[in-house]
This record gives sequence, C-alpha cells and structure tokens, in this order.
Amino acid sequence: MVKYPSGSSAAFRKSSDKPKKRKKYVHKDDINFSDRGMTLEQMINESNKYYLTKEIAVVHKKPTPIQIVKVDYPKRSRAVIKEAYFRQESTTDYNGVYKGYYLDFEAKETKNKTNFPLKNFHEHQIIHLEQCLKQQGICFTIIGFTALNRYFVTPASAIIKAWWEKDKSSVTIEEVEEWSIEINCGFQPTLPYLEAVDQFIADRKLNNGKQKL
Amino acid sequence: MVKYPSGSSAAFRKSSDKPKKRKKYVHKDDINFSDRGMTLEQMINESNKYYLTKEIAVVHKKPTPIQIVKVDYPKRSRAVIKEAYFRQESTTDYNGVYKGYYLDFEAKETKNKTNFPLKNFHEHQIIHLEQCLKQQGICFTIIGFTALNRYFVTPASAIIKAWWEKDKSSVTIEEVEEWSIEINCGFQPTLPYLEAVDQFIADRKLNNGKQKL
Repeated sequence: MVKYPSGSSAAFRKSSDKPKKRKKYVHKDDINFSDRGMTLEQMINESNKYYLTKEIAVVHKKPTPIQIVKVDYPKRSRAVIKEAYFRQESTTDYNGVYKGYYLDFEAKETKNKTNFPLKNFHEHQIIHLEQCLKQQGICFTIIGFTALNRYFVTPASAIIKAWWEKDKSSVTIEEVEEWSIEINCGFQPTLPYLEAVDQFIADRKLNNGKQKL
Repeated sequence: MVKYPSGSSAAFRKSSDKPKKRKKYVHKDDINFSDRGMTLEQMINESNKYYLTKEIAVVHKKPTPIQIVKVDYPKRSRAVIKEAYFRQESTTDYNGVYKGYYLDFEAKETKNKTNFPLKNFHEHQIIHLEQCLKQQGICFTIIGFTALNRYFVTPASAIIKAWWEKDKSSVTIEEVEEWSIEINCGFQPTLPYLEAVDQFIADRKLNNGKQKL
C-alpha cells in the first residue's frame, strides 16, 4: 500500500524534519549548500532551471502521479480536487534531453555517513532504469550523503547490479566512491551533475558506442 | 486560470461526451479503432504499453501536475488528499527513449474534418518543443482527426512555425497531410507512431545530423 510517493515527501515534511540550520559561522569560500536548508531534490530542481534557462539541457522532475476521485467545480473559481490518492509511480523522477542524449535518473539522499541503504530505490525504479538502458539512454542515480555534504553521480548499471544481489542491503561509501563521479556543489548550477554526464558520454564514445553505463 | 489540465480531461469526461458507438456493422477487416470508444490518448497509451513490453521503446505519459494543499493520514489506511488543485504543466504530455533517441511529443484530437485549430496547443507546449529541438530531441505532434479516423505524426517544427504565425488560427487538413506522416491504426500497436519516428531518424541521418525536424 502506497502511503506517500517516493522522493516526493518533501512537500509534506514536518518542520522538525528540516535539515538543521548551521551552527557556526562558515566562511564565504566554504559555503555549504546543504547547510542552507536545501534538499537534494531542491538542488537538482535549481540546477535544472539553470540548465534550461541557459539552453544547456531540458530536464524536468515528473509530477507525482495522483488518482483523482472527486473534483468540485465551484462557480467563478478554479476546480478543487476533493478526494485523491497517491499512485505508485512506474518510472524514475527525472528525465530529459541533453545534446541529443536521453537522460534518466533517480536522486536519493541519506543521513548515513558510511553506507547507502539500497531500499531507498524501489523495484519499479530499478526496472525502469534497466528498460531505458536497453534503449541506450544515459541512466544514473544521484546519491547524496547529506551529513558529509558529498554527492555522487553513479551509473545505473552499478546500482542495478548491487540492488539485485541477494543479502546486500546497502552499499558502502567506498563502493559508491569507486563506481561514481563525485560532484562538488557550486553556485550556478547548485549541483553541476552534467559534468558527470559529459564523462559518461566521452566514455561511451571511447567504447565505440558499446553500452557501458 | 486553469480549470483542468490540457489533454487529461478524459478522466472527468461526462458519459455524453464519449465517442458515439458505431451505428452499423463493420466488417472485421475494416475495424475502426476510434469507433471502439478509444480516445487518442488511450490509443497512444496502449501503443506505449506494447512498445514497452516488446522492449522497443520506453515512452510514458507524464502525470498531471497537482498542487497538494491538504492530506489526511487515516489510521490503518492510505493517505487521502483532501484539497488539491490542477497546476499549469510546463512540458508536453509524452517523452521517452527509442534507440538512443530522445522522443518528445504532444497528442491532440479534433472532431473537425477540414481544419485543426491551433489553440489546441498551448504556449508552454510549443516552447517546450522548441527547447527540446535545440537539444536535438525528436519532437513531434500526433494529430487525430477522429471523425475521419485519420492520424498524423507531424514534425514539431512545422506546428511551431504555424503556431507563431499571426492571424493563423488553424491549419488545414491539406497542410497537415503535406507536413506529416500518416499512421494507420492497427491492432498491436494500436497506433504504430514509431514508424513515423523511424522515418524522421532516417531523414536526419541523410542530412548528416543537421536538424530537420
């Protein structure tokens, strides 16, 4: 039973769940963006807005799928949905186009400092990434270790392989480091993840179009 | 003011709006799929399901964006959205990946037999198609003349050009014929629109990767 959609709980988060405000003065050069109260989702959305405005890429977060049961149409005002339910998603949260390449990815964050629990990814997301890989999409995950302010762009194939492994409930940060390209938070864009995508594209060209991701 | 989202009114359609049932016996070989009560959206969704199952392409309809205001979490049952509003979309309804190509399209149907009113496309859809074209996506529209049971896959560039023309409120069916690839309804998939996409890809290769769509 779906209580709320994955990756979209930010909107309903209680204030007590918000990332803590920074406790001490941080020098300008060391600005820590995750300390500024931004979730990984917000960082990606800001980056996508930047990429769109600069005509670098077109990537959007997909809306949360909702099953609408009852709608009121009050006179002289907009329609109000009075009863609806969260539906199971069948894809990842983000997709789009960059230099002719199809991009597809899922973003997850953890407060854990040493491991990333694989249950953060749901089966439908793993299957969707597999399907897109077969169509030669550039598929990856963005994993944020928020307590460490470290962000990794990991090829989907590595996560898919780990996810299907029996008795493997998490990946260590060392594994993530080995498989991924680490992205440093910036100002514009906040999370320049296309730098990693550029490297994936270069790798693919080196391999003569053979699927590596 | 958004009363309901474009292209998604099917769910709230009154029964009186449903396509009329066929009046006379139609021979098996002449099965008319639009007469079977399928909207263009349903035909595309069925085709996408077929393409996905056969591992031919991964294309999904994007969920309708909803602004959620109030959610109840009853004990021992799933969350219920009690107040929400339709939000303006910022993209087209469909995108996905096929043979490494990014696909992006919008589908519209009309009961008109001679013209297709351009107001069926909204400005945000036209702008989104322009943005995706700049990223070398394969962008198009599927236009259904339901009264004629004729379906056209039209390169986005043609529709964009017509849409921005002053004093042009519609395109004639002759113009649509000239610009488009006509698709015949089938059984599996119901609307084999990738046949047109194959031709767009071939055209692009002929033009040495130059943007033609």
